[in-house]
This record gives sequence, structure tokens and C-alpha cells, in this order.
Amino acid sequence: MPDIKSYNLSQRQRYVDELIALLKIPSISARSEHSADMKACAEMVQKRLLEAGVDKAEIFSTPGHPIVYAEKITDPSWPTVLVYGHYDVQPADPLELWDSPPFEPVIKEDKIFARGACDDKGQFYMHVKALEAMVQTNAICTNIKFLIEGEEEIGSVHLSDFVKANKTLLKSDVILISDTAMISMDTPSIDIGVRGLSYIEVEVTGPNRDLHSGVYGGAVANPITILAKMIASCHDENNHITIPGFYDDVAQATAEERALMAAAPFDEAAYRNDLGVRELWGEKGFTTNERTGIRPTLELNGIWGGYTGEGAKTVLPSKAYAKISARLVPNQSSEDITRKLLHYFESIAPAGVTVKATEHHGGEPYMTPIDSKAYRAAAAAIQESFGKAPVPVRGGGSIPICALFEKELGVKIVFMGFGLDSDNLHSPNEKYDLFNYYKGIDTIPLFHQHFAKEG
Amino acid sequence: MPDIKSYNLSQRQRYVDELIALLKIPSISARSEHSADMKACAEMVQKRLLEAGVDKAEIFSTPGHPIVYAEKITDPSWPTVLVYGHYDVQPADPLELWDSPPFEPVIKEDKIFARGACDDKGQFYMHVKALEAMVQTNAICTNIKFLIEGEEEIGSVHLSDFVKANKTLLKSDVILISDTAMISMDTPSIDIGVRGLSYIEVEVTGPNRDLHSGVYGGAVANPITILAKMIASCHDENNHITIPGFYDDVAQATAEERALMAAAPFDEAAYRNDLGVRELWGEKGFTTNERTGIRPTLELNGIWGGYTGEGAKTVLPSKAYAKISARLVPNQSSEDITRKLLHYFESIAPAGVTVKATEHHGGEPYMTPIDSKAYRAAAAAIQESFGKAPVPVRGGGSIPICALFEKELGVKIVFMGFGLDSDNLHSPNEKYDLFNYYKGIDTIPLFHQHFAKEG
Repeated sequence: MPDIKSYNLSQRQRYVDELIALLKIPSISARSEHSADMKACAEMVQKRLLEAGVDKAEIFSTPGHPIVYAEKITDPSWPTVLVYGHYDVQPADPLELWDSPPFEPVIKEDKIFARGACDDKGQFYMHVKALEAMVQTNAICTNIKFLIEGEEEIGSVHLSDFVKANKTLLKSDVILISDTAMISMDTPSIDIGVRGLSYIEVEVTGPNRDLHSGVYGGAVANPITILAKMIASCHDENNHITIPGFYDDVAQATAEERALMAAAPFDEAAYRNDLGVRELWGEKGFTTNERTGIRPTLELNGIWGGYTGEGAKTVLPSKAYAKISARLVPNQSSEDITRKLLHYFESIAPAGVTVKATEHHGGEPYMTPIDSKAYRAAAAAIQESFGKAPVPVRGGGSIPICALFEKELGVKIVFMGFGLDSDNLHSPNEKYDLFNYYKGIDTIPLFHQHFAKEG
Repeated sequence: MPDIKSYNLSQRQRYVDELIALLKIPSISARSEHSADMKACAEMVQKRLLEAGVDKAEIFSTPGHPIVYAEKITDPSWPTVLVYGHYDVQPADPLELWDSPPFEPVIKEDKIFARGACDDKGQFYMHVKALEAMVQTNAICTNIKFLIEGEEEIGSVHLSDFVKANKTLLKSDVILISDTAMISMDTPSIDIGVRGLSYIEVEVTGPNRDLHSGVYGGAVANPITILAKMIASCHDENNHITIPGFYDDVAQATAEERALMAAAPFDEAAYRNDLGVRELWGEKGFTTNERTGIRPTLELNGIWGGYTGEGAKTVLPSKAYAKISARLVPNQSSEDITRKLLHYFESIAPAGVTVKATEHHGGEPYMTPIDSKAYRAAAAAIQESFGKAPVPVRGGGSIPICALFEKELGVKIVFMGFGLDSDNLHSPNEKYDLFNYYKGIDTIPLFHQHFAKEG
């Protein structure tokens, strides 16, 4: 019987082919027209889990997109690892900025390009293949459960109810998630926190219809101008956020934590160069890593109103819209910040317009301890696989369900992400390096071995 | 032989049917995919002019959309009237706000609904039918020339060259234009001025690609936020425009002019109610009629960037855009203001973004005297047709070519508009009252009679 690495090496082509099949399904959870794709994707995940060797794999329907649950329980006395991931992806637009169609995966320079390549199909699927490898090489040493949902990108709206209703089914000793990034393949790292999220949409209505900008211009409030003024008022000249009460519950990082962050490798010139900007930008008094890790932020995700086509149209539009989201840090609460954002935009509307602010999904910030068995097992697995101890870092993204997992299931989470910040998550030309994909499939079994030993 | 009014009455159904045929052609000059429609529309205008009784009607091609020229020269000793109009229309979007498709004209409550119904197909076509009526009733008393272009809504970009090259062809004693509105059918009015226009587009680029707003949020300048700040900076708290030098050349209205404007009928409650706004808005220190008549304005015509689809996408976009236009009054120059706008947006860009500001079409403001033969003829025609003397008013819109006409052809313009501000020009559900259409066709021959007498 081959060892795991040898087995994986012999199966690489199939591992990639299977991932490509998964990436071809446009499982965009935000768009209602993709509900059939969501179902097809869940069914493929179920099928592949069964082929990989789980005892059972079931699809649970929800009022939204289905949840896939699977398990391989080998010995009830062994520790149980619950793998969480998601098969849904972000919308792919703007499509014109993709070098190849987002749902027609292509491999270029040993990278696979497709929406979801890294976030999170490529990453959760490593766990399916790691299971197969452990089964085929007789290396199973933990009980393994899989919870692969279809609504992570829209705030895991129906997962909470499922978790609350299925605590026994989901009982485990640790939740293992591959949906984050490493600093680089040369500097492996483990995320010890994810930020929370509040997301709102603002609709500003001026006149009851689009108007001729010459006939009416200057006489009625222009909803775009008013929306711009509202947005401009959200940050002061130091890029502090001005929403009343926004920072009330922010846990201040200690001097020690900040010193640790400052010691992590960071090449500002390379970072600027990669993004193509002359200067970085952000909250005064904090470094770039602090701005994306320990500080809350407020970003405009979208804006639209009036004429946006070719050429010129002299219209004074009736409506303007914006999508706005905040990333939250301990101990901010998503519900509280969402309420404050909604109230802010509604309260500053001048009398010439009406403002309707509505809520999209949110999620709580989450921190994971670095002195747990699970963290030690993850660190040992990475040390063994990469030949280097991982650096603990605070991630900027959000995984909305984390806080609820801990609250309802009473277990800690460990993040073993194999992506890179440069993987273009949520952007055109999302990619995942095959090297990282293979490395993940090799490393995950080591986590199970170390966790079984720790247990 | 019937008189003109009787003849018109007998032909109404055909007059409407012909207008409907013209309105069915989607002659949107701003959209390159409509170039075949533009050609078809020019050909229909040519055909109808010939049928109405001109001596000749020709289509002149330009690097853009074709120009239709026609003439009926009856007696070289008579005064010559040059009728200017345009067969192109504004884009029709947002399509979802139309109650019926913009290029499938319908008549409801004696109003014809279609893009271009009033601006300007319905209005210029009154002159074609007035010519027919004069020919059929042997009432021709002036020489009449027609200049019907296809680029008014995109700044008459190629008409200037045509006018400069065809001064003899276009030689006339007055230019007559129906492309403006009356206060109401009960309060007939004549526009004595149109505002000028500067129109720019601003593109703000932050990072070189769309980014994950969690991974990068807070660390790089968000182009939407920056664009919003730029837009917000264009007006101060009194809604004065802050672009340096913007008001430098504005001719201040005299106390007498302002008193005259204040005396014109204006029902603010009805105006607010029609627009569905609780409060009007505009430059402090000026009335609504002054804001839309004698003061320059700066309006946002469109804005877009980032994710604008259903649901939520957590993206920090690479680019954000805005379309921005200013209406100008004497003695502002479109070129000067355009230059100041472009410079303003480029100069205030912070180092974290790059800003590209480009120019769309512009046009100069234009004032017409009220002591000319042509104005007296127009006033007399309206007095005779409506039973009331017209009120002279300053219009808020722009007809880009006016200033050039006067400069190159050396003649004054008279505006005889039969539209209403409530005709939804440039907006969904554009309409033109059949009453106004018929009234215009009855009134235009009276202008020719009075102008012939004055001449």
C-alpha cells in the first residue's frame, strides 16, 4: 500500500479533473436564477463524498440553497473533526474583465482560473480528496464529518437554523475550515481570526421620475449628489469612520499584539506594486496589516444611478443606490453595527429626498485560540509539510457562521487556509495554484494524525 | 379652397399617423448600434418633406449621422425662414420605467407617448405639416428652408462644420426652432434664452483589479468613496458650485429682469407635487425660476462602479465612473467651463487613485432679443392663435448649435416651442399632447404670415 503522498501524486490528474467539473457549475448563491445550479452542485458534492469513502452523505434542503452533510465514523472513541466549507461562489461580474469565462476553468502556468477556484471549491475539495487518500492508504485515524453549505457568500442565512436543529449530528471536537489564505507558500501562516460583516443597501429617491437636467437641474435635489455627500460623510480626514458609535465596542489590540503583527513579513512596495497603486490608504495611526486585521472598515461595494451607457444623456435621475459593508472586529456586533449604519443613512437624508436603507447579510467577528490542541495539530501539520512553523495572523475576510458554530456546538475552529491574497477572491480571474491544491491535500491528513495524537 | 385651420382639421388623423411612423424609428444618436436607424429616419424625413411640397430635399452625410436639408423657394424677394429641428432622440433607458415601449407609440387621453414625441420629432414635424397646409391652401408667403439634424442630443458634433461650409445654402432672415416648452397652454410663453452645456465623464481607478473587500478593505483607496468625496466637494452648504472660476463670467440678471421673472406665474406647491418632493433644493438666494433660468448648475447625470446586481457582493472595485454636466448662462463659455471641470476633477485626486476626466459634447448659452421682427411675428402669431400675448421666459435646457448659428449665419433665432415641462423629455414616458401638436400646426403658418408682413 502506498503512503499518502505517493497515492496523491498518482491521482493528481483526476483530482484536477474533478475540481474542474465542480468549477463548471455556476453556483452563484446571490442570484435566484442559479437555484438549479445550486442543486446540481450540491448533488455533485454528495456524489464525490460518497466516492471518496464516507459512510453516508445527505442533502438537506433549506428555504434557500441545500446543505450537504456527510460523515465517516470509524471508531466512536476517536476524536471527531467537522470539516466546514461552501460550494457557493460570488457573482462573476464584471465579466468583461475576465481573461477566460469564469465557469469554463482553464489551467495556465499551473494555476486553475475559475470563479470559486480558491473560494471555496478548490479549498473544501482538498478535504474530500484528503479523505479519499486516507481511506485508500488505510490512514484514517479520526472520525470525519463534512458540512458543505451553499450560502456562505450570502451570509449563511439558513445554516444557523440547521446547526441549532442538528447539534447531535454535528457533534465534534474541532471544526476545521480551509477558506482563508497564507502569507505565501514560503511563509506559511494560520489565520487566528476573521472579521465580522454588516452589509446594507441605500436607495435615495429624489423626484418621482427621471427629469431633463436642463429643465429641472438646479431646482430639485439630485439623488446622486445627495448619495455622494452621504458617502463622503462616512470617513473623516484621517479616514476614521464617522458613523456615531461605530467604534464603541472595538477591542483595542495590546502593544504586544501590535508588535507581533509588525514583526510579520510585509513588503509594502511589493504590495503596492501588486495592486498598481502609488500610495496606500487607510485609517491614520495604523499599519496596513492592522487596517486589514484588527481594525473595522467601511467600504463601498457598489454604486449606481442615472445614465450609465455610452455617450451623454442629460438626465437628472429619480434614484441612486449604493451597496455598503463594514468589516467588524471583536467585540463589535453585526446587529448593532447594521442598525447604526441603517440609522445613519436614514437620519442624514435632507428633506428633498427620501432614503430607504435595507440590510443584507451579516456575520460576527471570530477569534480562535492558539493554545488549543487543534491549533497545535494544525501548526505541527504545516511544520511537517512546509518545513517551517506557521505564523499566526489575523485575516481580513469574514466567515459569517464561525461565531454561531462556537456558540451552538461548543467547539473551537481552526483555520487551515491554503489560498493566497493574490488569488483574486471575489474578483475577475480568480485562481488557485495547483501547487497549493496538491500541498493542501498532502497536509490535511497530517492534521488528522496530529489531532488524533493530541486527542 | 379651405383655409389653413379647416384643412388641418380634415387631415388630423393622417398627421398623427405620420408622426407615429416617425416615432417608431429608434433614432438614438448616442448609441452606435442605431446608425442604421438614424439613416432610415433621415430618409423618412426627406420623403415626408418632398410629399409636403418642398422643391428639393437632400440628405448630407457627415462623419456622424446624416443631416436633412430641404427648401421651398417661391419668390427670392420674400423673407426666408430657416426651420431647424432634430430627428435624433435621447436613449430610452431605464426601459423598465416606461408604461409602454418607447418606440411603440401609443395614444392615451389624447397624448402620444413615445421617445421623441415632443423632443423633437413631434415638434419639428409640425413645421413639415404647416408647410403642407400652406401649400395646399395656397398660403405660402415666405421662402422656407429646413435643416433637420441627427446629432442634437449628442452636441451637434458635426453640424458646425456643415453650417460653416454651407452658409449660402442656409442663408435666411431668421431661424425658427420648435424645441422648447410653454409655461402651459393657458399661459403661452416664448423662450428668449437657452442655457449652454458642458458635459464630462470622470473615471476613478483605485487598485488595478477588483479586490476582496475583507482582505484589502481599509488598506487601499476605494474609487467609489473617492469619487463620492469629489462629487460632494462640488457644491458648498448653500449649494453654490465650488469649482474654481465657475461663476467668473456669469452675467448677473438686473433687478428689473428678476422682478419680471418673479411676476411670471409659478405655483410652487403644484411644482413640488408634480415631482413628488417634499422640498425644493437649489442655490441659496435664488428662486426656482431663477435657478433653472438665469443661474448655471452642475448636475450628476449618472454614476456607476462595483457590484450593482441582486444581493450582496463584498468587492472593493477597481473603478468608479460619473457623468457630470453643467448648464451655462451668458457669458460663460462651454470650452472654458469644460476645461475648469476637467481640471478640477483631475487636480483633487488623492495619490491613492488615478483620475481620467474626459469631455462629452458642449454648447454655448444663447439669448434671443425680444425687439426683433421675428420675435414680434412669433408673439403676434401666438396672440392670434391662443388669444393671449406670450410671456417671455428663460429656458433651462440647451440647444447646442444656437450660438454657432448666429455667429456663422448672422441671423437671430426665435424659439416657438409648443411642448410642456411635464412632457418627460429625456425621461421615461415622454409624451406630446395632440392638442399642442395640432395647435402648433395651426400657429406656425401665422408666424410666416406675420413675419412676411414685418419683412
